[in-house]
Amino acid sequence: MYFASDNSGPVPQEILDALAEANAGYAMGYGADPLTTEVEQRIRDLFEAPQAAVYLVATGTAANVLGLATVTQPWQTIFCGPLAHIHQDECNAPEFYTGGAKLTLVGDGDRITAGALRKAIEAEETRGVHGPQRGCLSLTSVTECGTIYDLPSLQELCGIAKGFGLPVHLDGARFANAVGTLGCSPAEMSWKAGVDVLSFGGTKNGLMGAEAVVLFDPARAQEFEYRRKRGGHLFSKHRYLSAQMAAYLRDDLWLKLAKAANDRAARLVDGLRDCGAGFAYEPAANMVFARFSRAAHERLRAAGAVYHLWDGAEHGDNPAEVLTARLVCDWSLPEEEIDRFLSVLKG
Amino acid sequence: MYFASDNSGPVPQEILDALAEANAGYAMGYGADPLTTEVEQRIRDLFEAPQAAVYLVATGTAANVLGLATVTQPWQTIFCGPLAHIHQDECNAPEFYTGGAKLTLVGDGDRITAGALRKAIEAEETRGVHGPQRGCLSLTSVTECGTIYDLPSLQELCGIAKGFGLPVHLDGARFANAVGTLGCSPAEMSWKAGVDVLSFGGTKNGLMGAEAVVLFDPARAQEFEYRRKRGGHLFSKHRYLSAQMAAYLRDDLWLKLAKAANDRAARLVDGLRDCGAGFAYEPAANMVFARFSRAAHERLRAAGAVYHLWDGAEHGDNPAEVLTARLVCDWSLPEEEIDRFLSVLKG
Amino acid sequence: MYFASDNSGPVPQEILDALAEANAGYAMGYGADPLTTEVEQRIRDLFEAPQAAVYLVATGTAANVLGLATVTQPWQTIFCGPLAHIHQDECNAPEFYTGGAKLTLVGDGDRITAGALRKAIEAEETRGVHGPQRGCLSLTSVTECGTIYDLPSLQELCGIAKGFGLPVHLDGARFANAVGTLGCSPAEMSWKAGVDVLSFGGTKNGLMGAEAVVLFDPARAQEFEYRRKRGGHLFSKHRYLSAQMAAYLRDDLWLKLAKAANDRAARLVDGLRDCGAGFAYEPAANMVFARFSRAAHERLRAAGAVYHLWDGAEHGDNPAEVLTARLVCDWSLPEEEIDRFLSVLKG
Amino acid sequence: MYFASDNSGPVPQEILDALAEANAGYAMGYGADPLTTEVEQRIRDLFEAPQAAVYLVATGTAANVLGLATVTQPWQTIFCGPLAHIHQDECNAPEFYTGGAKLTLVGDGDRITAGALRKAIEAEETRGVHGPQRGCLSLTSVTECGTIYDLPSLQELCGIAKGFGLPVHLDGARFANAVGTLGCSPAEMSWKAGVDVLSFGGTKNGLMGAEAVVLFDPARAQEFEYRRKRGGHLFSKHRYLSAQMAAYLRDDLWLKLAKAANDRAARLVDGLRDCGAGFAYEPAANMVFARFSRAAHERLRAAGAVYHLWDGAEHGDNPAEVLTARLVCDWSLPEEEIDRFLSVLKG
Repeated sequence: MYFASDNSGPVPQEILDALAEANAGYAMGYGADPLTTEVEQRIRDLFEAPQAAVYLVATGTAANVLGLATVTQPWQTIFCGPLAHIHQDECNAPEFYTGGAKLTLVGDGDRITAGALRKAIEAEETRGVHGPQRGCLSLTSVTECGTIYDLPSLQELCGIAKGFGLPVHLDGARFANAVGTLGCSPAEMSWKAGVDVLSFGGTKNGLMGAEAVVLFDPARAQEFEYRRKRGGHLFSKHRYLSAQMAAYLRDDLWLKLAKAANDRAARLVDGLRDCGAGFAYEPAANMVFARFSRAAHERLRAAGAVYHLWDGAEHGDNPAEVLTARLVCDWSLPEEEIDRFLSVLKG
Repeated sequence: MYFASDNSGPVPQEILDALAEANAGYAMGYGADPLTTEVEQRIRDLFEAPQAAVYLVATGTAANVLGLATVTQPWQTIFCGPLAHIHQDECNAPEFYTGGAKLTLVGDGDRITAGALRKAIEAEETRGVHGPQRGCLSLTSVTECGTIYDLPSLQELCGIAKGFGLPVHLDGARFANAVGTLGCSPAEMSWKAGVDVLSFGGTKNGLMGAEAVVLFDPARAQEFEYRRKRGGHLFSKHRYLSAQMAAYLRDDLWLKLAKAANDRAARLVDGLRDCGAGFAYEPAANMVFARFSRAAHERLRAAGAVYHLWDGAEHGDNPAEVLTARLVCDWSLPEEEIDRFLSVLKG
Repeated sequence: MYFASDNSGPVPQEILDALAEANAGYAMGYGADPLTTEVEQRIRDLFEAPQAAVYLVATGTAANVLGLATVTQPWQTIFCGPLAHIHQDECNAPEFYTGGAKLTLVGDGDRITAGALRKAIEAEETRGVHGPQRGCLSLTSVTECGTIYDLPSLQELCGIAKGFGLPVHLDGARFANAVGTLGCSPAEMSWKAGVDVLSFGGTKNGLMGAEAVVLFDPARAQEFEYRRKRGGHLFSKHRYLSAQMAAYLRDDLWLKLAKAANDRAARLVDGLRDCGAGFAYEPAANMVFARFSRAAHERLRAAGAVYHLWDGAEHGDNPAEVLTARLVCDWSLPEEEIDRFLSVLKG
Repeated sequence: MYFASDNSGPVPQEILDALAEANAGYAMGYGADPLTTEVEQRIRDLFEAPQAAVYLVATGTAANVLGLATVTQPWQTIFCGPLAHIHQDECNAPEFYTGGAKLTLVGDGDRITAGALRKAIEAEETRGVHGPQRGCLSLTSVTECGTIYDLPSLQELCGIAKGFGLPVHLDGARFANAVGTLGCSPAEMSWKAGVDVLSFGGTKNGLMGAEAVVLFDPARAQEFEYRRKRGGHLFSKHRYLSAQMAAYLRDDLWLKLAKAANDRAARLVDGLRDCGAGFAYEPAANMVFARFSRAAHERLRAAGAVYHLWDGAEHGDNPAEVLTARLVCDWSLPEEEIDRFLSVLKG
């Protein structure tokens, strides 16, 4: 009953097979191998973006901050939500990689609203050289709360940023899960909506450690390469990143894995509703923020369920207290584990 | 006939097996899994350093610069050789990670000499707050020229640094190859000689992408963890780094692979000597800087040999011109390829 | 009728005289002159802090960010108010000088409250290495809204920070104005309350450009010196900074100037109250945030009054709209100008 | 007998007068005052550069590193001489302000030669993304050794840089002294020779603390303004910087001061030659590197002469040992002091 994170499960056999297959003989290092070239092209094809520059790195933080640094000046501020991974979970990596840019937190919800964004952008840069200058907009979808920007919202937010001349970054650590829910094309959820720089996640969706950064405008691609190298993120044995990504793209494995994870979450949500549990956010992908009593929580813990509490203390006195549990489903989660979780929850 | 780099060959089957084995079920992310704990302890055991702090990262540059940043202040200068990887091959990553430290190039040879080091250290910090302050000594062994510091030299250099109160970093991307040649213990080539921070390489010696940073003085370990995270180098699915390193340490695989590579190089050196080739540096591990004519070079290229020229242009008019070729042997290099190379060289 | 800023007025004759006096003959550069030594000691005496390290710089931003960088690690977050100069008016200088630290905005008022501070500190560092780590508390008094922390509040906030092991920085660009109002000693408003690092402002209070940074704990003084030098803030002809500061300290000129400015503001406030104007913040020093109608504003502008609107547009349609004007009084402001302003305001 | 530095002397009365004159009434801060606008235009006129962007800062290090950062990327290397102020005397400020660029030391003499420059540039960027990328050329004239690039040399070096597409920075802390010697126009020694960014020094030539940065190509002027602000180098009471610079430019005071200093040095050189002293570098401006015996040195010290030894220890056993003394003449140096120095030297 492991719901702690989608980075805790195993990788599918296809990935192991791909690594073994890529392991034959010699290959030029640092991405100068044919498999890397092939993967870059496949991603361009997938995104219907023949001009895009594509780079692989091993961690989501690296993908985010290298992408952000490429479109952000040190004297600017990045507009993002208060729960954004780049704000809460990267130990100031954006500040480090950008050379000291600031993050301006927009609104207070799981998703940025058009009104809050416009207000935040307008509030900056009213102080000449004194204040931080307006920098890019960074969105996340699936959000850290398991919700998704629908396409019109995504387009509207990107449009606002563009209206101020600001580029847009999308943290797509769970891009596949969002596409799985929306049923749209990758292009629709990225450049067609106005995204300039995308972190196309793999690690949370079944890879060992591989993410693609897609620069839809390749103008600053060369700069990205220097930033990646001096960040220590250029792999010498690059083929093992590429092999993972190649397998991920083959036969839509990326989408199948995401849909599998989403389906697990849907099963969990159905069961939770039957149990009368509430939700802190409306579930939309593979993360569920369920609200149930401390008594139920203690039963689940005793039965071995693993998950994080979103707020509230692990231990407390009041069995009726309602807690919020973050339940993340990965592609490999056995359905019987979900059912067992629900059964324990029911008591 | 692939002698371009030891990052171009495949990984041994043990590594693939270890990844497959580690792939079962769920594991806590970010290094909070039992395999990581085990690997850390194994490295402490290998180095006879029960207090050491051990961290895994995926690239050699990350290992070097995170280690350096942990012992270097932004206003200091790092003493290193003019050919050091941290100077020549990391696109200013040390400057980036240290927040702007300088590198002072010591001497002009493959190895730093005691006299040159003492002179370089003495020359700095004679200008009060105006000049850069003395920072750590960074050594590399196996050097970028394929040579090795013998233990007395290593001890002497570390002793000089210590005499000025300076910590010592060792870039051990090919640490195993050096140990293989010296026949010493890992402790003798590190903390017993005076090394404080070690990059213990794996990637150039058969891993897909895994390096250990060993802080023999754990006082700044916590700081390292923050630096790793904000550098984007903390792997969420950390078990796949640990699995590689665990297999590397099991049954001395690390040493066997290095010795295999060294043996290939020795065979190559023997053959080169027979052909009358010279050497730009005395070969000591798995890298050979052979000197032969442009005519021979062109025959080798025509026959498909892959390697880098250390200096001199790829193409030229004078067939008698003597070039220096960097020939790197990895653990997997077939002996028949070496023999074929030598045969083509002989003409 | 110049109320735009306290950095817009002239300097008193004492400062010009002091520069002329210091201009005789040769003096060692970079602070190695007797006048600098004397000034440092005078500041230690003024603050009853015999151990303190004292440094002069020329701008308030330099004072703030060099002080902050000395007590902040790049992976930490600085707790400050949303209107803090370091957040709003230094173009990301704190992020730059700290090497990428973050600023966490506490509460939404002119002064940080104990409750908001405790909540903000507790909210950070609940995410292990993932989130930013708790860094220093940075307070400002006189605040950007013209209000002042009374001593019990200052003590309480510092005490909360200390309870978490966090150092405290005080942006005292208008420290003298606050002391003038509180009637306390400089020590009471700094280290006796729990402040570790102080920007003791001079420029906004009558100097051409000179600020002192006081490190009450001199442990990191050496580091400050390197940071000042590499920030380009160590003056070669340091005597001209010291001369300003020496004159400032002589015969309590610093306090007289501040009280003069505060008195001007008090006269203005009295007159504003008589006119029925409101106040966005309760005036406490030399800055007044007065609320009056757009009609009055337009009369004042037409009459040549210079000041900034705190919010609201310069031009509008509704003469009854109530605007907030930031009116800053400097030491040199003629009383008749205040009276003329009030007379125009009355209409 | 004060020859320690040209930052140790007083400022001329014109500067004090200018400060007093600028001290009347109110002036908008941060450079938005008429005097600043006037000074900027005067500098454009002086340099025959109507498009240039001109900025004032208070220290030479600030001028250098803000200028350099504006034309240098973090992954580049700056080509400069091994004795450059930016390398030896700024405590890694260039590395800090550029976000981690490297400095490549060219040659080993007082002036960079064309051959050494070409070789150094060609040696970089042969390693793809691995090595630092070629950045700007930074020259210094008057050099730290008191020598000067003649115009053909300056043109040739700039031409080489331009041939590689690299911008050129000139550290002109003693620009006036060089112009005084060369008898050329400021334009000839800057943009007409190929200089893109100039630090036009004032502090070493009689100002309290004021330098101008001249960007002959204003394309990155806006960026400079942000960098200046976040470096803490934008003065609120900017008029006092401008007043110094205005007086400096009025009636060619800048050139008169420099010629006065150069003339003092010429008198000193003549006398030294008469005494049979040698010169480590051929004197060309206001700095003289004289070689005389330790016995003479001890006589001079005993008589109260103040200067730095360029190399060699302050104290030694051998009275016949030849030392090199750095003797710097400032504009205010009394001729009788020079004569007294020579008289003591003669013994």
